[in-house]
Amino acid sequence: MSVTTPQGFRATGVTAGLKPSGKPDIALVVNDGPSFAAAAVFTANRCKANPVLWSEQACKDGQVRAVVINSGGANCYTGTEGFQNTHASAELVAAKLGIGAIDVAVCSTGLIGEQLQREKLLAGIADAAAQLAVDGGDDAATAIMTTDTRSKQAMYAGTGWSVGGMAKGAGMLAPSLATMLVVLTTDADVDAATVNRALREATAATFDRLDSDGCMSTNDTVLLMASGAAGVTPAYDEFATAVGEVCHDLAQQLISDAEGAEHDIAIEVVNAASEADALEVGRSIARNNLFKCAVFGKDPNWGRILAAVGTTDAAFDPATLDVAFNGVWVCRDGGIGESRDLVDLSARQVKVSVDLKAGSESATIWTNDLTHAYVHENSAYST
Amino acid sequence: MSVTTPQGFRATGVTAGLKPSGKPDIALVVNDGPSFAAAAVFTANRCKANPVLWSEQACKDGQVRAVVINSGGANCYTGTEGFQNTHASAELVAAKLGIGAIDVAVCSTGLIGEQLQREKLLAGIADAAAQLAVDGGDDAATAIMTTDTRSKQAMYAGTGWSVGGMAKGAGMLAPSLATMLVVLTTDADVDAATVNRALREATAATFDRLDSDGCMSTNDTVLLMASGAAGVTPAYDEFATAVGEVCHDLAQQLISDAEGAEHDIAIEVVNAASEADALEVGRSIARNNLFKCAVFGKDPNWGRILAAVGTTDAAFDPATLDVAFNGVWVCRDGGIGESRDLVDLSARQVKVSVDLKAGSESATIWTNDLTHAYVHENSAYST
Repeated sequence: MSVTTPQGFRATGVTAGLKPSGKPDIALVVNDGPSFAAAAVFTANRCKANPVLWSEQACKDGQVRAVVINSGGANCYTGTEGFQNTHASAELVAAKLGIGAIDVAVCSTGLIGEQLQREKLLAGIADAAAQLAVDGGDDAATAIMTTDTRSKQAMYAGTGWSVGGMAKGAGMLAPSLATMLVVLTTDADVDAATVNRALREATAATFDRLDSDGCMSTNDTVLLMASGAAGVTPAYDEFATAVGEVCHDLAQQLISDAEGAEHDIAIEVVNAASEADALEVGRSIARNNLFKCAVFGKDPNWGRILAAVGTTDAAFDPATLDVAFNGVWVCRDGGIGESRDLVDLSARQVKVSVDLKAGSESATIWTNDLTHAYVHENSAYST
Repeated sequence: MSVTTPQGFRATGVTAGLKPSGKPDIALVVNDGPSFAAAAVFTANRCKANPVLWSEQACKDGQVRAVVINSGGANCYTGTEGFQNTHASAELVAAKLGIGAIDVAVCSTGLIGEQLQREKLLAGIADAAAQLAVDGGDDAATAIMTTDTRSKQAMYAGTGWSVGGMAKGAGMLAPSLATMLVVLTTDADVDAATVNRALREATAATFDRLDSDGCMSTNDTVLLMASGAAGVTPAYDEFATAVGEVCHDLAQQLISDAEGAEHDIAIEVVNAASEADALEVGRSIARNNLFKCAVFGKDPNWGRILAAVGTTDAAFDPATLDVAFNGVWVCRDGGIGESRDLVDLSARQVKVSVDLKAGSESATIWTNDLTHAYVHENSAYST
């Protein structure tokens, strides 16, 4: 299960020497057609990396034929020279493949504010173009890792067609769309509008509801390319389900590998007046450091949850709020509920439930705890 | 320098046994007049503690004659029994002093969601009422401490009059107004409207610009009581300056004693299109965990600052942003500026400057770094 599971795609991962560790750092995924429909979703951060600025343009016409991804540097806030590095990357891929540079998306991940070494970058891209293979998905997924401890891949098998995907991301992980990069492929024969609609629906319900550390990246990109090589056009609902399931699977892999995390926390907000209210409340809890520290300490400290809910504009009455940890309703009607001693937070998976009693909408936000290891990893990243 | 520095006030701090540590846990500050003008500012959290619900009513008429404060329990989300504990506290103070209960403000601080032990609470209040002294300010300041490592007091000396103050607060410290409690006193002869105006101006520019950990408390209260005992009515500007200076002094004491912090960070945003923009940008940086971890690691990671700025709606152009650590402009025009090796973050005080180049307004937000000790202290607080 990889980006080369669907027919019509080749990929590879190579080592260009951009990473001090000497691990693979250039991935290339190519759509060999016959069709080239594509859509992408990018970070909502207003400070965008050079590859995002480029790829926004490359994806505008609904056609992408290749994506080249480097780890070992985010190419963000690197000025004109940085943009030239992105442009040169696309041009080299295009020349090697005999296509137009404007059909080549570029992604970068790593440290912000450092210039990539152009010779190494371009030599690596040339190397990658020479090594493309129909079973190269695994190598591509490995080459995009930074602080990830494992590569992340997923697939959905339709009847005669499939969706494949790979992702990276472990920190700066609060997508609005986190130096989170995702490449999805499908051999379904679907047009660009369909690809775009399915991708936006899927990311809104999955990656956009991850909030590991509240920090929005400058480089986030989710790209879906459709080759049409299966010669099958699935019903929209099944196609959307397929894209959604692959996105959900990758999103859960991102949360479960978040930097330093010891708990994966699902915050389910129910009976909200609107889905927006449910999301606002879930995100407010997910971003509350005191709550996140409490979960690290295996402490069902529901007071910190109510304090976070109280900072939102959502419709609710503080006197009627209910809160549960793993199904134990420790807070009932804004007061002391079942005994906190009944709650066991020793497992990695934690479910927090908040009942707003203000309507019938619901939503889940996924986050992580705040740990010594998170602080350690992120206080030493660039030094 | 304490709340009993101004004439007309008595105070004390006693041990009621609410804290497992056996340290002082009840403070009482009494205004003996001749006048009783007062104003208060409370948490903007919609989930408010019982003492806040009570004190909002008690302060409404611009007159407060006493404030009783317990540490050892926030009395928040404790239902009807909790509100009755607050009410009984005010009534007992009133009975002991021969005043009306509605002129008695109540504050509580400690763990949320635990019931106070009423007998111990009321016995302690009776004990405090019997021990009031014109030099009792220091004892009161000690009795309101929770995780504070030191008591916090300040004063301003006018000509024939003064302002005194005490504060507590070390965590859940993002006032919009954090289990942050402040009591200010003055013997100036000023009416309630003047007290209210000066207090709101002062808190907006001081406590409201603290953002230690992004977590807004349920119990925050800042109360200013004026006794008129000096018989002096200062010009408004001087009175406002006095209140502002005492608030600033206490706010800096809060930041410098924040839980687990190793750095006190002033984030100055300049050349903003509006003060609101400057505050939004400053707060966004102050709440960025990756930035806060970087400062803990003494790493001038300006990329994380730009990533935080990019999440705001403030007016700015990413291509022209400048960022400095301690005066070293490591980011110029959204790109690489002076060498990060010139930055020394070994001292506790850190200044971050962000030049938005979008106007002429500015503002400073004060925050702390995110450390192992913060995670440790807040993962074990209630267990």
